[in-house]
Amino acid sequence: MLQRRRLLQAAALLASGGAAAQPAAYGDEDLRHAALLRDLALRDNAAWRLVEALTTEIGPRPAGSPADARAAAWAQEALRGLGLQQVRAEPFALRIWQRGPAAARLVAPVPQPLVMAALGNSVATPPGGIEAEVAWYPDLAALRADTSDRARGRIVFIDQKTERSRDGRGYGAAVGARFSGPVEAARRGAVALALRSIGTDRDRIAHTGAMAVDLTVPRIPAFAVSVPDADLLARLHGRGQPLRMHVVLEARADVEAVSQNVLAEIPGTDLADEIVLLSAHLDSWDVGQGALDDGAGVAIVCAALGVLQQAAQQTGRRPRRTVRVVLFGNEENGFDGARDYGTRHAAVRHQLVSESDFGAGRVWRMASRVQPAALPLVDAIAAQLAPLGVERAGNDGSPGPDAAVLMRRHKWPAIALGQDGTHYFDVHHTENDTLDKVDPAALTQNVACWAVVAWLAAQAPLPFGPAPL
Amino acid sequence: MLQRRRLLQAAALLASGGAAAQPAAYGDEDLRHAALLRDLALRDNAAWRLVEALTTEIGPRPAGSPADARAAAWAQEALRGLGLQQVRAEPFALRIWQRGPAAARLVAPVPQPLVMAALGNSVATPPGGIEAEVAWYPDLAALRADTSDRARGRIVFIDQKTERSRDGRGYGAAVGARFSGPVEAARRGAVALALRSIGTDRDRIAHTGAMAVDLTVPRIPAFAVSVPDADLLARLHGRGQPLRMHVVLEARADVEAVSQNVLAEIPGTDLADEIVLLSAHLDSWDVGQGALDDGAGVAIVCAALGVLQQAAQQTGRRPRRTVRVVLFGNEENGFDGARDYGTRHAAVRHQLVSESDFGAGRVWRMASRVQPAALPLVDAIAAQLAPLGVERAGNDGSPGPDAAVLMRRHKWPAIALGQDGTHYFDVHHTENDTLDKVDPAALTQNVACWAVVAWLAAQAPLPFGPAPL
Repeated sequence: MLQRRRLLQAAALLASGGAAAQPAAYGDEDLRHAALLRDLALRDNAAWRLVEALTTEIGPRPAGSPADARAAAWAQEALRGLGLQQVRAEPFALRIWQRGPAAARLVAPVPQPLVMAALGNSVATPPGGIEAEVAWYPDLAALRADTSDRARGRIVFIDQKTERSRDGRGYGAAVGARFSGPVEAARRGAVALALRSIGTDRDRIAHTGAMAVDLTVPRIPAFAVSVPDADLLARLHGRGQPLRMHVVLEARADVEAVSQNVLAEIPGTDLADEIVLLSAHLDSWDVGQGALDDGAGVAIVCAALGVLQQAAQQTGRRPRRTVRVVLFGNEENGFDGARDYGTRHAAVRHQLVSESDFGAGRVWRMASRVQPAALPLVDAIAAQLAPLGVERAGNDGSPGPDAAVLMRRHKWPAIALGQDGTHYFDVHHTENDTLDKVDPAALTQNVACWAVVAWLAAQAPLPFGPAPL
Repeated sequence: MLQRRRLLQAAALLASGGAAAQPAAYGDEDLRHAALLRDLALRDNAAWRLVEALTTEIGPRPAGSPADARAAAWAQEALRGLGLQQVRAEPFALRIWQRGPAAARLVAPVPQPLVMAALGNSVATPPGGIEAEVAWYPDLAALRADTSDRARGRIVFIDQKTERSRDGRGYGAAVGARFSGPVEAARRGAVALALRSIGTDRDRIAHTGAMAVDLTVPRIPAFAVSVPDADLLARLHGRGQPLRMHVVLEARADVEAVSQNVLAEIPGTDLADEIVLLSAHLDSWDVGQGALDDGAGVAIVCAALGVLQQAAQQTGRRPRRTVRVVLFGNEENGFDGARDYGTRHAAVRHQLVSESDFGAGRVWRMASRVQPAALPLVDAIAAQLAPLGVERAGNDGSPGPDAAVLMRRHKWPAIALGQDGTHYFDVHHTENDTLDKVDPAALTQNVACWAVVAWLAAQAPLPFGPAPL
């Protein structure tokens, strides 16, 4: 139905002699080149080599850290190695949060150690820590609904569970407990916030991640416990016994630092001043190796441009528009890189913004956010991805987080390739985000998809934007 | 073939009117009662309730710790709750090892944090830690074969891998690297020993476990890194770059403490002075909740006696021999409980020693170590377990570790129920050994097996021993 309606729209548009001066269709040569790119990508293992190198030679790289700077240098060398041009870093100042040592334990009804991780932006406890009775809530909604005084002086615990899902909707439904829980708890007088890790695993490893800061309420220490620890608390809570917890947590907030976006390009030809932007984020949390989040994305988009470059050398066919890769800084805790990019490049016409930041699973669907006249072109891109197992989704898509910031702020159009996230939230924001969780074959499929998207976006006879928001 | 040979042996024995005054066969009533026990056990969930309570209300319980004492009190209350008699603790003095804070990191060629755990019995580093170049060995054999000076002044790293297997043979083949590696490294002048965790998972969680102490060589700090960390080291080693590592580790060894075995019984009738011993170990490592190792075993053997007791109350049929459960202390690091039990009870006739200490998987085979004349009886027990999916293995079996100490020292005969250990070494000796890894249905099957074994061992018309060693 969707397909048919779009064809009718396009036909109507063409028949009307309307906005589109050129036909909203690709020429055969462009489509043949897309197929070539797909085949080249599937024979290549550059993405695997890149994520292997990034995790092995750099490792975790929180924005503004020495490892972040090393990662930026590494990335520029890697991009030059792929034959790309205009390789550069665009630095920006930011304020970062730094984790210190932290520990939590159950004090009553039984002493038991807890495996935990502070949330990004948490304040420290006093040096001796905080000990208090636990106010237990099954989920964020229950805390929000609580108008009583129960949380006051207590450590609020939110037992929010994360459902496994291919498209990440389980995470989407749960993550508010992490992001908004601390503020909701503080608003009710809590002395600290603890929660079940926002994750789908059952490993004794806690998931970190960013929490919101609201300057109108006191800032309280906040941390996640691992899923088995949350299970333990739930069992004891179920026995009707009051829980008492101790937490000691060191952290520094608002530390002045510098991070950067890393850029590289394949210059366009007749439309070189228009940008087709493929992105990922170079920073990671300080736990794990940043393999799935977002080493895989970095590797995928860099390798996709590498395939375009390789094909250009083989065939002499260069893209009409400039294809640019941007590896954003500080996606994890503030989107400083995306905002800096938007400010610097606000006046530049963007044909596409996009981002690979959902782990290392295979692409299974393609959504978009383009002007209606461009839909036949985007459907034609989807048709090229169909042999790779990709379904066409709607024109209400949202790209990865940095790209979404840009799309919303600048109305730059977007294509979103949805990766299979069934296992992503097992390791997301944890020590377990390591190279061994990456499947090289799935990476290759991602590269093939992005190379096709980049090429056809660059060749399109129509602008994709502005994005209908 | 095996089955047929045994039948012939038994027939010959009976025909000869030899050692056996009574026929080596069970009466119908005993077999019917065995079937009743099996059915009662499969309808019961006592084992789940026990392991849930032990992990929830006690948690980790290293021998000689306050939690170990709490566990002993908990166990006695639980055994009384099952209607058992002679419930008691037999205390013994021991020297324990206590873990302190520890951290390791790669210093060169790239700085990367490492997830690690000290091995049991490791000495501490100097307060500032140890930094040294790494001497990398693919396995223990390679270290043993090294007659060069390469390890001297270095941190030896053993990259020993553990293969997944149902019967634990992969662990058996690998664990020497942990147990003997530190001594082999010290003998060659190493300043510390590190190794790939002896485990089959790929979680960023290190596996602890006991290491040998040889007073003829210097004691050096020893620790395991997680499997993904070992992968990282292997990748960097493969690049031909020298590795440099820093480790700082606190620990106390030889601390005087008290632990205990916990015992309970169903008194026998005409052969009450002979003991049928079912066992598990109550202690655990200090990491995890001791759910699979060996909370599951504790729950299984206690619940098996509970089923015997329940059946006795229903039918009035009590066992001929006394059925005793022993929950040993300090299996994990010294077998002090097993040795103390052997010394105290050396003069008592044991019809059987056995132990459940291989996680929470289903029983899939039954081995034995009994005198040849008793083989038809043991085969008859196996026949009762066949409906539970259990195969008969040979008469060269070895029971769990504490029971094996007793079998070897006293020639007490043994039955070994082999559990499916395919996933056991994913969590063995780690923080990940938590209740959620236990399958209640598999526990129930274990209880049914042990109830049948205990009953038929108690009713046997022949002594099972002495064990042929």
